[in-house]
Amino acid sequence: MRQGVFITIEGPEGAGKTSIIQKLKQGLEERGQVVMATREPGGIAIAEQIREVILNKENISMDGRTEALLYAAARRQHLVEKVSPALKEGHIVLCDRFIDSSLAYQGYARGLGMEAVYEINRFAIGELMPHLTLLFDVRPEVGLERIKAHKEREVNRLDLEALSFHEKVREGYLQLADKFPERIAVVNAEASIQSVYQESLKLILAKVEEQSLGQQC
Amino acid sequence: MRQGVFITIEGPEGAGKTSIIQKLKQGLEERGQVVMATREPGGIAIAEQIREVILNKENISMDGRTEALLYAAARRQHLVEKVSPALKEGHIVLCDRFIDSSLAYQGYARGLGMEAVYEINRFAIGELMPHLTLLFDVRPEVGLERIKAHKEREVNRLDLEALSFHEKVREGYLQLADKFPERIAVVNAEASIQSVYQESLKLILAKVEEQSLGQQC
Repeated sequence: MRQGVFITIEGPEGAGKTSIIQKLKQGLEERGQVVMATREPGGIAIAEQIREVILNKENISMDGRTEALLYAAARRQHLVEKVSPALKEGHIVLCDRFIDSSLAYQGYARGLGMEAVYEINRFAIGELMPHLTLLFDVRPEVGLERIKAHKEREVNRLDLEALSFHEKVREGYLQLADKFPERIAVVNAEASIQSVYQESLKLILAKVEEQSLGQQC
Repeated sequence: MRQGVFITIEGPEGAGKTSIIQKLKQGLEERGQVVMATREPGGIAIAEQIREVILNKENISMDGRTEALLYAAARRQHLVEKVSPALKEGHIVLCDRFIDSSLAYQGYARGLGMEAVYEINRFAIGELMPHLTLLFDVRPEVGLERIKAHKEREVNRLDLEALSFHEKVREGYLQLADKFPERIAVVNAEASIQSVYQESLKLILAKVEEQSLGQQC
């Protein structure tokens, strides 16, 4: 049975992930591929319940490690119930954020340690590491500018205070790309949407081709 | 500042943990110790919410790894909010079930792997490993007999079907005791309550003495 191709898209807010994933789904479907686009918790009941605990505003005392374990738990369930069945059907799965978000945000920027957060996520993911990860790289100030332009809201105190945090997130992401060059491709997301889309599509089609050849051999 | 002593009590259902922990708390208090007895989720709001997700009867599709990550998350929060503050006050903490339950039940008996479950629990626990673990060892058929006698209910199909599972749990526990002899003391829990109590009390007082000497040096 043909196995699908698991693609994750990473990067900060304002990198354009949402719009480009929609364009990629369309572009791949026009080329005859079956595509599922998703992001955690993705309508999976158990993952949604876990996400509610994470986002519950009353849970101000939540420890950083508790949160990391909850993200890993929601990730596992979304993977088992949604991603894995689609891959078994031979589909392309485009997932908006995955393990590298936890590594960059919690492991690196929040200081829990990338190695430690990697361990619990490897437990969650098992053999289902992405075949390809597109890292939409954008400087925090550019991402912030885009949020301002698209969301049509005032930049708030939090956006400004968090700039150094978002610098660290970017640093974490780029370290990961250095460490896993076979899996992670850095895409310059400061370029035009059309250009980011074209580059991403090319990378995905090459990976689909590679997987398909690998399975014929 | 004097640090407390962290004791965990492990063993299957029917080993007598609940009654003996109450007696131990009383016995230690009569000897001038300040004792907190607890068990996860222990009234900690976030841990209770996580436990609700685990126990929700509609969540029949919950994957074993999701469950293990949720237990570790609830453990972390209970530890941070309840156990750790009591230890900082210099109290004795008696905790009914802890990391070894996850290792024996999920790691060994459910087959997730003790090493893997140990990793995610080490992430949850950090530096707060128990000073002493009492493993109340009892053969499954004896534990089952006690449940029958105490709970005054019919032994159901599940109890019977699960006997081989409980054999594996016991095997897992005993392997842990072999692996961590400095931390885990095996107590024969088929003996009388009075005898199990006396042996446990002796082990705890020796550990309290040892910790106290260690802190004076």
